[in-house]
Amino acid sequence: MNREDLLFSIRTLIRSHDAAAFASIASTTHALDLVEALDLFGTDATLGLLMLLPPPARAELFAHFPDGAQDALLTAMPRDAVVTLFEHLPSDDRADLYHRLDAAARQHLLPALAKVERDDLLRMAAYPEGTVGAVTTSDYACLAPQMAVADAIAHLRHTALDKETINIIFVLDHDQRLRGSVSLRDLVLADGHAPIESIMRSPPTTADAYWPQLQAAELIRRYDLLALPVTHADGRMIGIVTVDDAMDIEKQQDASQLARFGGTVSAQGNDLDVRSTPLKQMFRVRVFCLAILTGFGILTSTFVAAQEALLSQVIVLAAFIAPIVDMGGNTGSQSATLVIRSMALGELKLSWRDVWFVVRRELPVAAGLGVTIAVLEAILAYFSKGVGMDVLLVVGSSMLVCTALGGIIGALLPFAARRIGTDPATLSSPMITSIMDLIGVFIYFGFAYLFLGDLLTAAA
Amino acid sequence: MNREDLLFSIRTLIRSHDAAAFASIASTTHALDLVEALDLFGTDATLGLLMLLPPPARAELFAHFPDGAQDALLTAMPRDAVVTLFEHLPSDDRADLYHRLDAAARQHLLPALAKVERDDLLRMAAYPEGTVGAVTTSDYACLAPQMAVADAIAHLRHTALDKETINIIFVLDHDQRLRGSVSLRDLVLADGHAPIESIMRSPPTTADAYWPQLQAAELIRRYDLLALPVTHADGRMIGIVTVDDAMDIEKQQDASQLARFGGTVSAQGNDLDVRSTPLKQMFRVRVFCLAILTGFGILTSTFVAAQEALLSQVIVLAAFIAPIVDMGGNTGSQSATLVIRSMALGELKLSWRDVWFVVRRELPVAAGLGVTIAVLEAILAYFSKGVGMDVLLVVGSSMLVCTALGGIIGALLPFAARRIGTDPATLSSPMITSIMDLIGVFIYFGFAYLFLGDLLTAAA
Repeated sequence: MNREDLLFSIRTLIRSHDAAAFASIASTTHALDLVEALDLFGTDATLGLLMLLPPPARAELFAHFPDGAQDALLTAMPRDAVVTLFEHLPSDDRADLYHRLDAAARQHLLPALAKVERDDLLRMAAYPEGTVGAVTTSDYACLAPQMAVADAIAHLRHTALDKETINIIFVLDHDQRLRGSVSLRDLVLADGHAPIESIMRSPPTTADAYWPQLQAAELIRRYDLLALPVTHADGRMIGIVTVDDAMDIEKQQDASQLARFGGTVSAQGNDLDVRSTPLKQMFRVRVFCLAILTGFGILTSTFVAAQEALLSQVIVLAAFIAPIVDMGGNTGSQSATLVIRSMALGELKLSWRDVWFVVRRELPVAAGLGVTIAVLEAILAYFSKGVGMDVLLVVGSSMLVCTALGGIIGALLPFAARRIGTDPATLSSPMITSIMDLIGVFIYFGFAYLFLGDLLTAAA
Repeated sequence: MNREDLLFSIRTLIRSHDAAAFASIASTTHALDLVEALDLFGTDATLGLLMLLPPPARAELFAHFPDGAQDALLTAMPRDAVVTLFEHLPSDDRADLYHRLDAAARQHLLPALAKVERDDLLRMAAYPEGTVGAVTTSDYACLAPQMAVADAIAHLRHTALDKETINIIFVLDHDQRLRGSVSLRDLVLADGHAPIESIMRSPPTTADAYWPQLQAAELIRRYDLLALPVTHADGRMIGIVTVDDAMDIEKQQDASQLARFGGTVSAQGNDLDVRSTPLKQMFRVRVFCLAILTGFGILTSTFVAAQEALLSQVIVLAAFIAPIVDMGGNTGSQSATLVIRSMALGELKLSWRDVWFVVRRELPVAAGLGVTIAVLEAILAYFSKGVGMDVLLVVGSSMLVCTALGGIIGALLPFAARRIGTDPATLSSPMITSIMDLIGVFIYFGFAYLFLGDLLTAAA
């Protein structure tokens, strides 16, 4: 069903409240498409339609709404419907939603839940945001090692409906310890009499619930996993992280990396979101970053102001400050991001071998860039301003050194960031620019005194 | 087996050439871990071990080597082994490897292949790099609609070994047109007598082989797919893109986005890689970007040079040029990356509604940032240089306008980039800085003439 037809159908259903018709639409339309269409109709209309669905389908659709919409729907929902919802939500979505409840709502909810759901909820919701545990679902399929394949398939038939996935099934011993995993494919292809332990494999890796989420996502990507087991230190199984969550985690992280590199570093670690972050918080985080850069800039401007004598002799020197020191930042930004890119793809690690490798490759490139850009700048400077040879020497030499040095320093900064334990993207582009500004004015006026210093003594 | 044990075992096997032992290691170690361990032993030793494996296992392991290592192994491999390799490689890896052969090698290879493999290879290799077709594999599982579930499972048992995945099976009619898909889970849970068409679902979406790869990856992430069907315009099935490839595509793209934003935009579209790109190409791409920025910088410096009269009256004005115009770039960089982030997460689209929404939110923040930073700069300027009130007015006012304007312009640039059809990250941080430099000097000297212009007339 295309979007227009879907919107038309929803509009009709809001008036007619035809439960069977809506259930039919919900089962044939992908949940995300339905959620986006419902977004246009507002909370009350959406809730009315949701309540037409049987609780399992209702919870499954609810789980696809964005957090803000979920909160609005929850507020408008009658209390017993809230309890039913929590009982049917997938384990990880349930824990997320619980996190967003205030204390009063939680106190009302918990006693009303069935024990099994309440225990699972409290267990999964205990993991802090951003950890592997927070994206772990306890709805995984498991088997005992001695089970025969045919019995295992029969067991799955009974239990599969509540499971996030049965494409990978985990083999646990009687202490809940992970012994291995078996794919549904292997089960289907195997001899029905064989014991599970004869066809199971060791999972390539497991994750600890307190690791950062990103680590789980990287493992899933590296080993092409459909589900990553999450265990306690002693091997007891907690739950799984599925590949679709891994894709979302990586997308979120990579999208935020660009924002961090652009100069917005939030201390609490929450990403700023252009659409939803409160304006006060948006201002606070950004002004903090900009204030640091302002402080840096004052160092630069103080130094330049101190060169008053030389500047008053050769006014045109002032014209080139910005373009020359900026080129250090430009080249630095290029090499820094190329290094960060390779780190993100796992091609570079924090090791002296890799640092030396990068420097060895960057040196000739940076030198070549320095010479080329210096010559280009000198030529352009001559034809646009007709400056004399001595100023051209200053401009050219400082452009060369700034460009080349910017490239080298930029390539090293991500390693330095990793060394002190920060995400390399935090050494943002504005930070690189400010550092190179300061270094650049020293270089620029250094050459100015070298080639034009005689003007000062002459004037004195 | 941990890494040390693995390396020790490999070292032993290189001497002993014990085929059974190596086959055992290859089946219990994840291919990627084995490949990384073998990397330390060089091409010849690796090839020796590879040839110990039966062709199917050999091809599977080979497919996990990085491109450079694959090429080296291929060069060292005897010709009939190359043909065998091509016959056993997964369809998409085979097409990739074929792309990297030179014309002579291809001419030797093609006639030697069995017809089925040759036809598949030529078909899949025809898709250009970067398209969906280039990451599509034809090794998918398919069924006919009228098949009974029990027969379908039996059919899968016979054909599954060659398939990339059987977790999702595609239902095709006799013209190879996609009718629907069925998950292995649904097959296992269904009644053995039911026809496939009674349990199949419509796939949420399909992809065209000539779309950019990233679009396929985004669809897989959006709809939580395990495999995305790739079809001709008339619905005939070509192959599938699997979720693990989608994760790799997105990772590659996001990592490169940062490099593009850092100021390295490659015209051919190939990402620069710090480790592997030839130095000449690295230089060429980067010098092109820097030269454009140099040209921009000349405009800025020409304008500043023309303000010689004013500058010679108030030398200290020169000190503040860089920090003030830079702040426009810093704020612009912040807002641009925040907008690009939201676009990457699908939260913002190219629409007037979203443009207006972003501007409405950015205006108060940019204004607040402008006022705060302007006051901060003025205070710091007073205490560090003891400048007079009139200069402080110039510094403060231009800082305010540069900061606020930078924020607004930065927020709009990604929309402008999308509008002209480029990736927003191409409007790189250095580009934003250069644009704001030029705008900034106009603003700065504008205020300088406003508040200090009387000095000029007084001096004249």
